[in-house]
Amino acid sequence: MAGNTFGTLFTVTSFGESHGPAIGCIIDGCPPGLALDRADIQTELDRRRPGTSRHVTQRREPDTVEILSGVFDGLTTGTPIALLIRNQDQRSKDYANLAETFRPGHADYTYTQKYGFRDYRGGGRASARETAVRVAAGAVARKWLKARYGVCIRGWLSQLGEIAIPFVDALEIGNNPFFAPNASCVPQLEAYMDALRQSGDSAGAKICVTAHGVPPGWGAPVFDRLDADIAYAMMGINAVKGVEIGAGFAAVTQKGSEHGDEMTPAGFLSNHAGGVLGGISTGQDIRVNLAIKPTSSIRLSRRSINLAGQPVMVDTQGRHDPCVGIRAVPVAEAMLALVLIDHALRHRGQCADVVCQTPKIGGAAPAHSEPPA
Amino acid sequence: MAGNTFGTLFTVTSFGESHGPAIGCIIDGCPPGLALDRADIQTELDRRRPGTSRHVTQRREPDTVEILSGVFDGLTTGTPIALLIRNQDQRSKDYANLAETFRPGHADYTYTQKYGFRDYRGGGRASARETAVRVAAGAVARKWLKARYGVCIRGWLSQLGEIAIPFVDALEIGNNPFFAPNASCVPQLEAYMDALRQSGDSAGAKICVTAHGVPPGWGAPVFDRLDADIAYAMMGINAVKGVEIGAGFAAVTQKGSEHGDEMTPAGFLSNHAGGVLGGISTGQDIRVNLAIKPTSSIRLSRRSINLAGQPVMVDTQGRHDPCVGIRAVPVAEAMLALVLIDHALRHRGQCADVVCQTPKIGGAAPAHSEPPA
Amino acid sequence: MAGNTFGTLFTVTSFGESHGPAIGCIIDGCPPGLALDRADIQTELDRRRPGTSRHVTQRREPDTVEILSGVFDGLTTGTPIALLIRNQDQRSKDYANLAETFRPGHADYTYTQKYGFRDYRGGGRASARETAVRVAAGAVARKWLKARYGVCIRGWLSQLGEIAIPFVDALEIGNNPFFAPNASCVPQLEAYMDALRQSGDSAGAKICVTAHGVPPGWGAPVFDRLDADIAYAMMGINAVKGVEIGAGFAAVTQKGSEHGDEMTPAGFLSNHAGGVLGGISTGQDIRVNLAIKPTSSIRLSRRSINLAGQPVMVDTQGRHDPCVGIRAVPVAEAMLALVLIDHALRHRGQCADVVCQTPKIGGAAPAHSEPPA
Amino acid sequence: MAGNTFGTLFTVTSFGESHGPAIGCIIDGCPPGLALDRADIQTELDRRRPGTSRHVTQRREPDTVEILSGVFDGLTTGTPIALLIRNQDQRSKDYANLAETFRPGHADYTYTQKYGFRDYRGGGRASARETAVRVAAGAVARKWLKARYGVCIRGWLSQLGEIAIPFVDALEIGNNPFFAPNASCVPQLEAYMDALRQSGDSAGAKICVTAHGVPPGWGAPVFDRLDADIAYAMMGINAVKGVEIGAGFAAVTQKGSEHGDEMTPAGFLSNHAGGVLGGISTGQDIRVNLAIKPTSSIRLSRRSINLAGQPVMVDTQGRHDPCVGIRAVPVAEAMLALVLIDHALRHRGQCADVVCQTPKIGGAAPAHSEPPA
Repeated sequence: MAGNTFGTLFTVTSFGESHGPAIGCIIDGCPPGLALDRADIQTELDRRRPGTSRHVTQRREPDTVEILSGVFDGLTTGTPIALLIRNQDQRSKDYANLAETFRPGHADYTYTQKYGFRDYRGGGRASARETAVRVAAGAVARKWLKARYGVCIRGWLSQLGEIAIPFVDALEIGNNPFFAPNASCVPQLEAYMDALRQSGDSAGAKICVTAHGVPPGWGAPVFDRLDADIAYAMMGINAVKGVEIGAGFAAVTQKGSEHGDEMTPAGFLSNHAGGVLGGISTGQDIRVNLAIKPTSSIRLSRRSINLAGQPVMVDTQGRHDPCVGIRAVPVAEAMLALVLIDHALRHRGQCADVVCQTPKIGGAAPAHSEPPA
Repeated sequence: MAGNTFGTLFTVTSFGESHGPAIGCIIDGCPPGLALDRADIQTELDRRRPGTSRHVTQRREPDTVEILSGVFDGLTTGTPIALLIRNQDQRSKDYANLAETFRPGHADYTYTQKYGFRDYRGGGRASARETAVRVAAGAVARKWLKARYGVCIRGWLSQLGEIAIPFVDALEIGNNPFFAPNASCVPQLEAYMDALRQSGDSAGAKICVTAHGVPPGWGAPVFDRLDADIAYAMMGINAVKGVEIGAGFAAVTQKGSEHGDEMTPAGFLSNHAGGVLGGISTGQDIRVNLAIKPTSSIRLSRRSINLAGQPVMVDTQGRHDPCVGIRAVPVAEAMLALVLIDHALRHRGQCADVVCQTPKIGGAAPAHSEPPA
Repeated sequence: MAGNTFGTLFTVTSFGESHGPAIGCIIDGCPPGLALDRADIQTELDRRRPGTSRHVTQRREPDTVEILSGVFDGLTTGTPIALLIRNQDQRSKDYANLAETFRPGHADYTYTQKYGFRDYRGGGRASARETAVRVAAGAVARKWLKARYGVCIRGWLSQLGEIAIPFVDALEIGNNPFFAPNASCVPQLEAYMDALRQSGDSAGAKICVTAHGVPPGWGAPVFDRLDADIAYAMMGINAVKGVEIGAGFAAVTQKGSEHGDEMTPAGFLSNHAGGVLGGISTGQDIRVNLAIKPTSSIRLSRRSINLAGQPVMVDTQGRHDPCVGIRAVPVAEAMLALVLIDHALRHRGQCADVVCQTPKIGGAAPAHSEPPA
Repeated sequence: MAGNTFGTLFTVTSFGESHGPAIGCIIDGCPPGLALDRADIQTELDRRRPGTSRHVTQRREPDTVEILSGVFDGLTTGTPIALLIRNQDQRSKDYANLAETFRPGHADYTYTQKYGFRDYRGGGRASARETAVRVAAGAVARKWLKARYGVCIRGWLSQLGEIAIPFVDALEIGNNPFFAPNASCVPQLEAYMDALRQSGDSAGAKICVTAHGVPPGWGAPVFDRLDADIAYAMMGINAVKGVEIGAGFAAVTQKGSEHGDEMTPAGFLSNHAGGVLGGISTGQDIRVNLAIKPTSSIRLSRRSINLAGQPVMVDTQGRHDPCVGIRAVPVAEAMLALVLIDHALRHRGQCADVVCQTPKIGGAAPAHSEPPA
């Protein structure tokens, strides 16, 4: 495959540039009979939409989605579902000066080396605008996972720059522009972002995403392990530089007697595994952490080269998120949903007839009510 | 695909259980005309082989590889290369007591839930023995990458439990049983492992892997980014719980003005990106960190359940690595090689005719001569 | 994959129902730098367009294509190319009576059994309208094949019902509504179609498609042979019931001494192979024959069942091609182009460095100047 | 993928050359819990084995299969099943004279052009010996299809050169060396083959393969239609030049009122569709015809070129089947089984929850008791 299709049985093929006429995708392999409405998708898109607070890019995009196929009489038909989002608020002239130069830390240079030239308007295909499509596709996956298995996916910002954000209450996540599960942190986050914006610089972030209700058995070792496909999905989001499952890098200093989650008939006693053992879901919560690098488009002046390879200084004006990590929360949720639905279908394709004599045991803890460790 | 095939154009399909008759793989898509000899593969297998020091499992496996196809007159023919490794030293009776119970932190429980039952002898398909096959396949990939592009891949142990191992000299890596790039650390590592073994417990580890000489342009965004496929490959290795590219989780607290690697006609001035921008190689060293969890098979007694779901205590005797992270070094190198060759072929499939006017600029630093930051 | 993506490196993912808002596709993996204009695609679509003569369906669809992504400054960028065609002339009420019944010979029954229900408007996803998308995608493939390798693809109607159409002149193909390479046959074909239409019945047809200029070496045995992928592509076109490569079923009564194409330094002396040996192109013309069944939607009354499984009589009014074989000609050309570009890219992915000492020998005969035997 | 993996969920990856150490495959995605024994596979291999009559190649190969993985306690585990067949009776010196020349009608020339050189011993990878692996893998698929759905697959020789073989009795197929469903034809077939062998020439053949008991709903339109994947599978068998589903090329001269199979509550009234409509199985018998070209390795002298491109005369001594079509019967059955199991798994992956209100209606006729029209 050429890189823009995600998944094996439930596939999402994505298209679109930041300043082209439209972005969108084709979902193939959706189970038929799922009640699906434009609003199901729009709701998720609105969570990621730009321009909703002063802390994110001021580009005004309604991100209105149109369903072009695959739904009839309010139900998915099992045929491809095409989703279309027209771009509305392109200001390509902001990018004219970027046509000849490469932003440090950006894909400008690598796209040019790979393809010989690039659509430089708004970052072209490398723009985070592309992730709206993932959120739209993920909305379909989430709806099915919830309806069919009761799976519930939730993400939040767990760190902004140096500021750790202790998990307090999942219900707070939707109440602030930071996806922070902690109301008392919000003033500090606002002050941090205001200062950051003023400085012309950008900041990194850390995100946590969990899935509750995933039954044991999903994942296809040895290569297409559930955690391997999650890592692929997450590292494939713009600006992600690190992925952890469960204990993650903390496992380096754990002993086996600490890390290995003990089991009782009542359930696992801890979740250092993050819900995956041997590449297969355990039935506990899936827990994933992501490291998001600071936005590469900043107003500060930096050393670079131009198309001819000569030294230049580059500063980026345009409209950018000072911390792309914030709006990455719904994107990470969507990617987790896409991995899970794909493995749900793959699992039942191979193992639909399996009857296991061993009872399924429950997870260690209620979902989303505590920090991911 | 059903999970045991890795890659798109250069594919490796793996088979085999720990205590079955054999393990092995089929490599498909290898470019024809590569000089390939059994010894090229055996050399790499010997680096991962068990029983080579007191610090790893004492299972005695010669891991002798046989090439069954795809090589004629000393050259690859372009047809599938089948590799076969017979298992020699199975002691399945060591595992009889594990047939009825699940080791905490192990795939025992999840394999049973997925497939209804499992081959419990030596961990069956979930055993790290499977990774020998990856090393064998990776040896073919490495040889081609070196011959065709001069790519050089190297991995090392950068942390063992709490002991950080400062990078001193790449040449030392092969001189000790720990793949440590630092001779002076070795006594401390030996003492640590001796104590660990005696305790009956196990320890985690951290690994660094790099690739030098990768040209700019490899990687297929938006989903099959080079870093996404690396994350998939690495998280798919047994016991890996975290993956970082370049700065990784350190990017969370970096500012954009620090993280974004500046460019000059003489090359990049730093490598926080880890050699990948926008999912495409930059021409700098690819740098990857892995977190490896402690071995789940330990002699200490732990709470678990049996096949009937009843509470039991489990301790594992058998022969196991007290730290699987050590022998994971050549495995991680192999997986990086497999990702790179696949993207090399994919890139030239699509972009063989590309002529880029912008000169390629070099990397920030000589390869393997300094720690990965 | 879920069935609506075609190809391995050059992929086409298709969507759309006959009476939904739109049909279209995403092309992924197109080589960058190809000059591409909306008109390149529209020209091919116009060849297949309905309503252009009295012998095809009278549905009025302009089939205007919009390029949504992947082209910048008139050149393909290497990123996904999305193509959109809005449906204009749906008369869904014509199909209301089909909602409850199944047309004999149609996909109505099988879609219902597979998915539980179906979009019955105009045949939904099973409508031949879907093939417009293939023509649009094929136009991109053809342009690249021609520009890069000089490959020229041509199809024609070789039989309509009982009327064989001897090949006379390729230039005539575009001069009549039947894609007939033979001007003198046209009056007979017109009379046949007029009588057929009046009868309320439908007719089968036979198509020949060839590709000239394909270099030796394309095709990936043992499964993804060039001819195997051509058979897959062609049998996947609506209404196709048979595929032949080269001599096809005539090979059954040939002797080896007749069938095997002799070679001289000046070229092959015949082309019974149809340009493929061992699943790899020979350098001769690729020659493919297709059998197209008669349209299943006919005005004559036929026995069937309804949704409840009860006996009913069905006749189809609506607007349909009395012989779908006619408009299938550009579709078959497009599918051949898609197979060829995919294998061109796959071949150079694996074999870009191959130098063959044996000279390439030419084909047996000038392209398209004689019947395909 | 690189061409040697067949299938999407149930995959077979094949390796091996005619005169290399071994041939074999890895089956991935087999449902767990299937009772599987070496004998299940050996039985099918013995049907295809060379040297069983004077009418086929005299190469003596026991084709003894070894199961290397994926089966435990007599049941498939859900992990990859590796099958190994050692080559025993290579006489590579027979082929020394072929090292420098290309047989007309053979893959010699195309393999050399593609890969730069070739393993010329016994035809290397292009040898029909490779098809033993397909039969072995197909045996696993058949066993599951039979056990899980009651699907029964049967093939026979329907024409040898000019001799049509009327279908009389399925039970006769196993009673003669020609897979002929007609005892009275056997003397004529024997005489034909004796004369053919003496002449030094070879002959083509026609095969019919059917599957009885396939439920409605298998197949993934629009590209991965069941018939499209069957065509791909069959055209990918050595020497196949044509594939028909149901009426095949006879559909060209049919009217819609004749071709479209009428339905009643008691079942379909005919089976011109060959069991597939719109790319999805109907529940009727799947019926496929194949055209097999005459063997290209013949003793008669023919014009060709050598590695340097100079004119030569070539005659092939070695040991070859004078009609490869005969032993292709079990190969075609195996390929049909592989397509069916893959689509069975794919179908339940996507549509496991579908409940269809319309009753399934039966097929037109008892299976295998009448000729395929």
